[in-house]
Amino acid sequence: MRKFVGERAKRLIHTVVKFNPYHTTTFSSSNNTSLRSSFRSYTIMASNVATPPVTVDSLNLKVLKCEYAVRGEIVSVAQKLQQDLQANPGDHPFQEILYCNIGNPQSLGQKPITFFREVLALCDHPALMDKKETNTLFSADSIKRALMILDQMPGRATGAYSQSQGIKGLRDTIAAGIEARDGFPADPNDIFLTDGASPGVHMMMQLLIRSENDGILCPIPQYPLYSASIALHGGTLVRYYLDEATGWGLEISELKKQLEAARQKGITVRALVVINPGNPTGQVLAEENQRQIVEFCKKEGLVLLADEVYQENVYAPDKEFHSFKKVCRSMGYGVKDILLVSFQSVSKGYHGECGKRGGYMEVTGFNSEVRGQFYKVASVNLCANISGQILSSLVMSPPKDGDKSYDGYLSERDGILKSLARRAKTLEDAFNNLKGVTCNKAEGAMYLFPRIDLPKKAIKAAEDAKKAPDAYYAIRLLNATGIVVVPGSGFGQVPGTWHFRCTILPQEDKIPAIVTRLSDFHSKFMNEFRD
Amino acid sequence: MRKFVGERAKRLIHTVVKFNPYHTTTFSSSNNTSLRSSFRSYTIMASNVATPPVTVDSLNLKVLKCEYAVRGEIVSVAQKLQQDLQANPGDHPFQEILYCNIGNPQSLGQKPITFFREVLALCDHPALMDKKETNTLFSADSIKRALMILDQMPGRATGAYSQSQGIKGLRDTIAAGIEARDGFPADPNDIFLTDGASPGVHMMMQLLIRSENDGILCPIPQYPLYSASIALHGGTLVRYYLDEATGWGLEISELKKQLEAARQKGITVRALVVINPGNPTGQVLAEENQRQIVEFCKKEGLVLLADEVYQENVYAPDKEFHSFKKVCRSMGYGVKDILLVSFQSVSKGYHGECGKRGGYMEVTGFNSEVRGQFYKVASVNLCANISGQILSSLVMSPPKDGDKSYDGYLSERDGILKSLARRAKTLEDAFNNLKGVTCNKAEGAMYLFPRIDLPKKAIKAAEDAKKAPDAYYAIRLLNATGIVVVPGSGFGQVPGTWHFRCTILPQEDKIPAIVTRLSDFHSKFMNEFRD
Repeated sequence: MRKFVGERAKRLIHTVVKFNPYHTTTFSSSNNTSLRSSFRSYTIMASNVATPPVTVDSLNLKVLKCEYAVRGEIVSVAQKLQQDLQANPGDHPFQEILYCNIGNPQSLGQKPITFFREVLALCDHPALMDKKETNTLFSADSIKRALMILDQMPGRATGAYSQSQGIKGLRDTIAAGIEARDGFPADPNDIFLTDGASPGVHMMMQLLIRSENDGILCPIPQYPLYSASIALHGGTLVRYYLDEATGWGLEISELKKQLEAARQKGITVRALVVINPGNPTGQVLAEENQRQIVEFCKKEGLVLLADEVYQENVYAPDKEFHSFKKVCRSMGYGVKDILLVSFQSVSKGYHGECGKRGGYMEVTGFNSEVRGQFYKVASVNLCANISGQILSSLVMSPPKDGDKSYDGYLSERDGILKSLARRAKTLEDAFNNLKGVTCNKAEGAMYLFPRIDLPKKAIKAAEDAKKAPDAYYAIRLLNATGIVVVPGSGFGQVPGTWHFRCTILPQEDKIPAIVTRLSDFHSKFMNEFRD
Repeated sequence: MRKFVGERAKRLIHTVVKFNPYHTTTFSSSNNTSLRSSFRSYTIMASNVATPPVTVDSLNLKVLKCEYAVRGEIVSVAQKLQQDLQANPGDHPFQEILYCNIGNPQSLGQKPITFFREVLALCDHPALMDKKETNTLFSADSIKRALMILDQMPGRATGAYSQSQGIKGLRDTIAAGIEARDGFPADPNDIFLTDGASPGVHMMMQLLIRSENDGILCPIPQYPLYSASIALHGGTLVRYYLDEATGWGLEISELKKQLEAARQKGITVRALVVINPGNPTGQVLAEENQRQIVEFCKKEGLVLLADEVYQENVYAPDKEFHSFKKVCRSMGYGVKDILLVSFQSVSKGYHGECGKRGGYMEVTGFNSEVRGQFYKVASVNLCANISGQILSSLVMSPPKDGDKSYDGYLSERDGILKSLARRAKTLEDAFNNLKGVTCNKAEGAMYLFPRIDLPKKAIKAAEDAKKAPDAYYAIRLLNATGIVVVPGSGFGQVPGTWHFRCTILPQEDKIPAIVTRLSDFHSKFMNEFRD
């Protein structure tokens, strides 16, 4: 079983903490000041001209500290079970592993949008466009779009590196798409095409974090990319808690409180991360709330890092997605007034093109010298992959009414989104029907984040097994049912509460079986540990 | 004009150096100890709870220190010239910009390998395989390969995230390709698929570099990805010089000398970078030399980071590529005896699929705990893009004798490689015909790295223009001819010598004009500055 922070790594971190004479808090404390200072002393102590053997003891401690639960221990166990199932199909009380741990729709049977894939295939193999058969195999607007895109590329080639910021013509298309979405201008020079949202987030952390004294305000629960990236870049995660009682509400008073507390500890808070629609929490922010957040960032001088990758995934009829860019502009804040980075990805939405690793960030409010540094960091990685770049432009400019592909596109898109809404509701109801479980609505995104009220005996059993109680529940669930969820402890939660994240992505014909298996497991588990 | 290290950034770095009471050397010194310690004091001095405005003064200094010449100032000037040319075609003494700065073959007209693109198009749009027309548009073995690959992927979907290390079936194919190349076994579990070689290099630097006291031995001249990545991760570049007089020979005595010198300065040297075939220098290492390098790494406990992305690009008839893996195994060193990472990319070779961002690293000799950390870092970025993953498998397993595509594939591959060899020879001869220029053979890779003996007056003119002399030459060349080369100072060189890197990639019909323009410019330049 692969462990993300191996036992020796854990011991090493523990030892370092013990050695530190200023040690006052434990490793799991929220600000990690003791670990940070001991970190420094370790680095200096460990300096030695002889080349040490490469073991976890001699790796970068920032890497050892980093954790990423979405692909953590539970996934390793699931992969092992899957191999077992193939070798000995009768040995488990289930026939397949159901991956509800990660937002990866196409791995669970969701089909890609035909128009998108026609354009990609034609761009990769333009020789097709010289053949008459192509007109029967591809729609006319796919061919037209592919030709337009090829004309925008150096050498008309998807095999050529592009400008480091991304192909200019594609950025023009994306900027036009943002304008159409928001009703406010967008500048193609503000767009940086990326291999998905994650590399964009890493880039911002790399630019902003100078040392462990720099902090980034992140929601708890959070998507663990943020804590992982902050750890890898040696900064400090400054937690603000979402309010579960009000449907994971984001309270400005909480932001202020945590900002002040961090500053009193000597942390320079540089940015605020907001995930809207929420991951893992699924809430969609109200526009008025977004205005307050913008005012808060403006007043405190924080960069607003807006994770808006679920902008197409809104299911609650009374909710609507508003980009932070639109909110800023509608408040009268222009390009120079607010430091805003909006992240978008081709992996989410109705298209779910995770494997393509495409996305962009729209970067506004930074001066040209700082932008030059963004460009330089992008250039060290040469450019984002071109298929992902093309797909980003398609997502922001899908077929329009009148185009040959439009009806087909609309039916594919709405079919997926309506089905996701139904799956969200079914699973939400199922969770709320379990004894000791409460689950907020999935207004958007791709996840539910139910809370489990675990009996004391279960918590004791988890302690004996050296696991967090929700991790213990999740492993037991996996072994009994084949369903993979991510323990809430991987996202962060109010201490003493326990959750798990479950995607809404299994195909609809699988949902009833999931509900039955989950309910059966849950009652047995609760009976086993009844106080 | 975009500058990579802006004026204010330079001033800031300069100020920091001045403030440092232990300041003994300048910023351009080879070990940077003074900058490193002042860096630390700056970080501590700058700690302030108030959030500072986001300017270059408040960005991560590691980012400011990083430089990447291949896409640096000269490219910005070229892009501006290109816009000018479109707006005012008559204003310049040339009609087009010729990008000889970067190994990007398809941007200059090289066509992709048909088999590779057929497979990619079919994998991206599998619905094609249900249509009868497809059998006339695609070769039978492309269809067969695409079906095999789809069967290896979660959800049979190129739009799904894969396992973080890459799709297992593709890693099996790559391992088989390595075995066929080397004649020694390869383990698919040692393969990590990446978005090109660069992210793999970054990952290794991230894992190995703990602080500025950790150093990495790199060739000078080097591909500046290495210096950039070491700077971004806060380590120390330990230079070893290639010997221009012996065709950029790699001398073990030089490695030992630089290792000792670094150790005496308190630097823990952790790894040795070897680029073979060389970039920017084009030499192909002899097997005996590689054996000495392996012994050196073994004795000193260094990780051998083998940049082998040009393994298909060997032009000298008396030279052959030997992978370091093969060399190690043929010396009798097994998987546990040597710490070796070999980087491969789909961007180079005869295929030149730069825009696809595909590649892999083969990682051998590390224990399972360390491997667990590799896997975790890979998982934070989810996975490499799937088209790049597929292409990596195709590159390591192209059509074989008997396959329908084989003859066409062979003719495309050999056509490209033979043409590259001719272009290398023509340009090498042209450079050696210039007065005051000497140029080693391009035995492999995609570059020539001629040395220019610049007149004192030209060096003075460069000083007045605040540029390195070779950068001054390159900018003058660009403005006079539209030819873009990269100054040697971007790669490092023996102090007082001047070079530039020129790719061999322009299509053959352009080469005569390049030679003429270059020769004309060069004689005028030398006349202008004659001592």
